[in-house]
Amino acid sequence: MQSLLLGIDGGGTHCRGRLTDSAGRVLAEATGGPANVWSQFDGAIQAVENVIDELFLQAGLAAEVRDRTTLVAGLAGVNVASVHARLQSWQPRSQARYLFTDVEIACAGAHAGAPGAVFIVGTGSQGAAWDGVQFTLLGGWGFALSDDGSGAILGRRARRLALLAQEGIVPASPLTDRIMALHQHSPEQMLIWSQQATPADWGRVVPEIFATAQQGDEHAVALLQQTAAEIEQMVQPLLARSHGKLALMGGLAVPIQPWLSAAIVAQLVPPQEDALSGALRLASQFSQQPA
Amino acid sequence: MQSLLLGIDGGGTHCRGRLTDSAGRVLAEATGGPANVWSQFDGAIQAVENVIDELFLQAGLAAEVRDRTTLVAGLAGVNVASVHARLQSWQPRSQARYLFTDVEIACAGAHAGAPGAVFIVGTGSQGAAWDGVQFTLLGGWGFALSDDGSGAILGRRARRLALLAQEGIVPASPLTDRIMALHQHSPEQMLIWSQQATPADWGRVVPEIFATAQQGDEHAVALLQQTAAEIEQMVQPLLARSHGKLALMGGLAVPIQPWLSAAIVAQLVPPQEDALSGALRLASQFSQQPA
Repeated sequence: MQSLLLGIDGGGTHCRGRLTDSAGRVLAEATGGPANVWSQFDGAIQAVENVIDELFLQAGLAAEVRDRTTLVAGLAGVNVASVHARLQSWQPRSQARYLFTDVEIACAGAHAGAPGAVFIVGTGSQGAAWDGVQFTLLGGWGFALSDDGSGAILGRRARRLALLAQEGIVPASPLTDRIMALHQHSPEQMLIWSQQATPADWGRVVPEIFATAQQGDEHAVALLQQTAAEIEQMVQPLLARSHGKLALMGGLAVPIQPWLSAAIVAQLVPPQEDALSGALRLASQFSQQPA
Repeated sequence: MQSLLLGIDGGGTHCRGRLTDSAGRVLAEATGGPANVWSQFDGAIQAVENVIDELFLQAGLAAEVRDRTTLVAGLAGVNVASVHARLQSWQPRSQARYLFTDVEIACAGAHAGAPGAVFIVGTGSQGAAWDGVQFTLLGGWGFALSDDGSGAILGRRARRLALLAQEGIVPASPLTDRIMALHQHSPEQMLIWSQQATPADWGRVVPEIFATAQQGDEHAVALLQQTAAEIEQMVQPLLARSHGKLALMGGLAVPIQPWLSAAIVAQLVPPQEDALSGALRLASQFSQQPA
């Protein structure tokens, strides 16, 4: 009997799943609720299970067919040892089950299963390189400690600069004026705001930074140069492990490109497929290997 | 009848008070509980009231004598408009009551009531300048947005660097090794730690940074140079408003001095008196002015 391939992309906002036959023909697709195994383990596993049930229901396949399935799930936080340990107890009915992070399956998708690397720069940042045998992860240790080159870090620096300008310690600029205007030009309002701000909140001024840099704002230009330098520093070890092919992904990937050096831009390739396709690429590879 | 002077120094760990006659002769001294009007308004006011009651009890003075008292209180957070507004309802029995921040009374003490400035670099950072008529405050908007040159910011940068070294993105050094050893060389342990870390926790690696810089550790040297540059940037506007006299205070004040430029060091003066003495200096000045 033919084997089946099942890919799961589980993230903080929702969980997606796709079931195909061994040739890649889609049998079913489904979307479920949030599946962050790092912050909400039990809820995340339930969301993933629900999506799997839905896929087999849609495909009209009996329960015993699951025993021929190669499952690849990409879940944020799997690289954290405590989460990884807990996941050992999750054994969904399948022939084989492989766990990766969301960044790893994104990497497999970006290069259609071939060796390559990704660096994701959105609210946070994290990298992964696939050499054809194994993944290497880089960064992704959170807003307080890591996330170099990300929108949250960029936004925090911009707000700090706006406050310095408000107090006359650095010159004001259109960017710093716009940021202070978001807080009624009041450091106190900004302080109160900062006590509840999430990384996504910090990152919300990023479009203003790109817009004012476009108009020559010196602070905005310096901030984007710093972010570009951080991205270049982070991608060097990824390039070394990925045959020099790198896809930049996430919300900052496109706007930051004009700020990167020509040498780095020359090594960038566009992502070819999405993360769910990456999970299925891996499932296909693994299903063809001897157990 | 002779007037009395009452100084209060209210901070997050405790509240101190001193009662003197108009010539500065000490009549009583007392210490009470935490008095942070920013984070715990009601408890702080109660702590201050308790210290005042204790002072008059110790001095053996009747309640009506309080009507001849000039009170100066230095309380962290008074500069925040919402706290300032709430404090209008606090009218302790006195002839006159003046409210300042803890940094302002520290400034008055450091220069024995004469014009001058202070920049306090401990866990956080904040500056104040006194031109003889009014105070100007600078910085002090918290760990997330401000506190340039402080131990918490320095410690956060050092930990971030240690994590970059752990992942091979920057070279390791004795400093980064020591910091990772605090977290069993595990980024995950450090991530979990970071989610609960207070500014004081971030600052706890500062002694390691000074110690390794002493031995020529390149990361430690670069970190201290950056902190020194931030301090120099922050003190420029203070020097401009204080006849060029500046006292550096707080836990980093002494160790950071070898890292500051000779031009800045030449303008530094040692603090002459403590914050409580500063409050009493101000009380003395105000009691001699026409109401």
